[in-house]
Amino acid sequence: MFHLYTWKTPNGRKPAIALEELQLDYVVHAVDINNEQQFQPEFVAISPNSKIPALVDDANGLKIFESGVILEYLADRTGKLLPTSGAARYETLQWLYWQVGGLGPMFGQLAFFANRAKEKIPLAIERYLTESNRLLDVLERRLAASPYVGSEDYSIADIAIYPWVVSVINNIPQLLGDLAATRPALKRWMDSVAARPAVVKGMAVLNDYTPDARIA
Amino acid sequence: MFHLYTWKTPNGRKPAIALEELQLDYVVHAVDINNEQQFQPEFVAISPNSKIPALVDDANGLKIFESGVILEYLADRTGKLLPTSGAARYETLQWLYWQVGGLGPMFGQLAFFANRAKEKIPLAIERYLTESNRLLDVLERRLAASPYVGSEDYSIADIAIYPWVVSVINNIPQLLGDLAATRPALKRWMDSVAARPAVVKGMAVLNDYTPDARIA
Repeated sequence: MFHLYTWKTPNGRKPAIALEELQLDYVVHAVDINNEQQFQPEFVAISPNSKIPALVDDANGLKIFESGVILEYLADRTGKLLPTSGAARYETLQWLYWQVGGLGPMFGQLAFFANRAKEKIPLAIERYLTESNRLLDVLERRLAASPYVGSEDYSIADIAIYPWVVSVINNIPQLLGDLAATRPALKRWMDSVAARPAVVKGMAVLNDYTPDARIA
Repeated sequence: MFHLYTWKTPNGRKPAIALEELQLDYVVHAVDINNEQQFQPEFVAISPNSKIPALVDDANGLKIFESGVILEYLADRTGKLLPTSGAARYETLQWLYWQVGGLGPMFGQLAFFANRAKEKIPLAIERYLTESNRLLDVLERRLAASPYVGSEDYSIADIAIYPWVVSVINNIPQLLGDLAATRPALKRWMDSVAARPAVVKGMAVLNDYTPDARIA
């Protein structure tokens, strides 16, 4: 049995999608970051960085935090969604790292300055709009040349990137505009990923959560 | 033979340190980002995201970008600097992902707003100072409990984090202050990593570079 400590954010949804895709048994433990549950000692013991998601595997006692390594672990645990060795493994993983180190942080900073910051700061908004657009152009070129981001096969790289693009569509609509017109390869890929039953289930995790004082 | 396409930045130095530590034969190709060489077609063919570093392995034709996966690849290629399987592998890798997704992007944004932005924006500087300090506190607690970041053994997690802390010491000295007084475990670890001959060599890569119009 796997225990997923998570919340309704792009990073939090990545492992839920992978667990669904791999048909693994898991329990969801809500870590309500709106109520600062990520700082509760029982969560910090698993995730010393106080960030969701984190994963515990009962089979071997493993406890890990950071969504990227959780995806890599689940793939290796099952031998699916990532080549087990050879050049293809690292050519897929490079796009996972690209999401973790670039797309995620830059989209996150854009969302902060465009939506949540108490002042509107043009220099900061422009900085992150420009970089987010550049990253989306890289993704568009990749998907014009390859059916999926990591390779010809659906992989943990797609799982990592999809919830972040959904988040942009929902929260920063001015960035993407009419996707079919501006980035047709990205639109084709988004439709294809969105249609996967595991993605539908993983994206819905905790959507019916009711606030509670403790980590469930 | 390995070909390392890189520049004198924290991410650019990570693979140089690993190649030195693993005693692998490599050629350095300078990609002078001050002269926009990262946009030259011969580099984009290897690194479609137009960021350094990138690595080519002549032995199998592999071409990869993203410093985190380059470290993971070099470790797996040699069976060193990262456990090859089991829980320990992922417990080490989680700290590599933590650097790639957190420490690197946040230190990078802090350096931009504190040093390079054309206006000083208090809200942005405060945001990244606060988060960088929080990340350094996580690192201090980890190093107070473990000789190295990833485990009891020196690993690619240490290699990923060290150049970023050096960069902060050099470029944002107000963040760290007197390290021995404020973060003694981090100071002990920094001294230990800095003393490794491979770190000295890797950190010096391209320090004597003379500008050229083309990728060498």
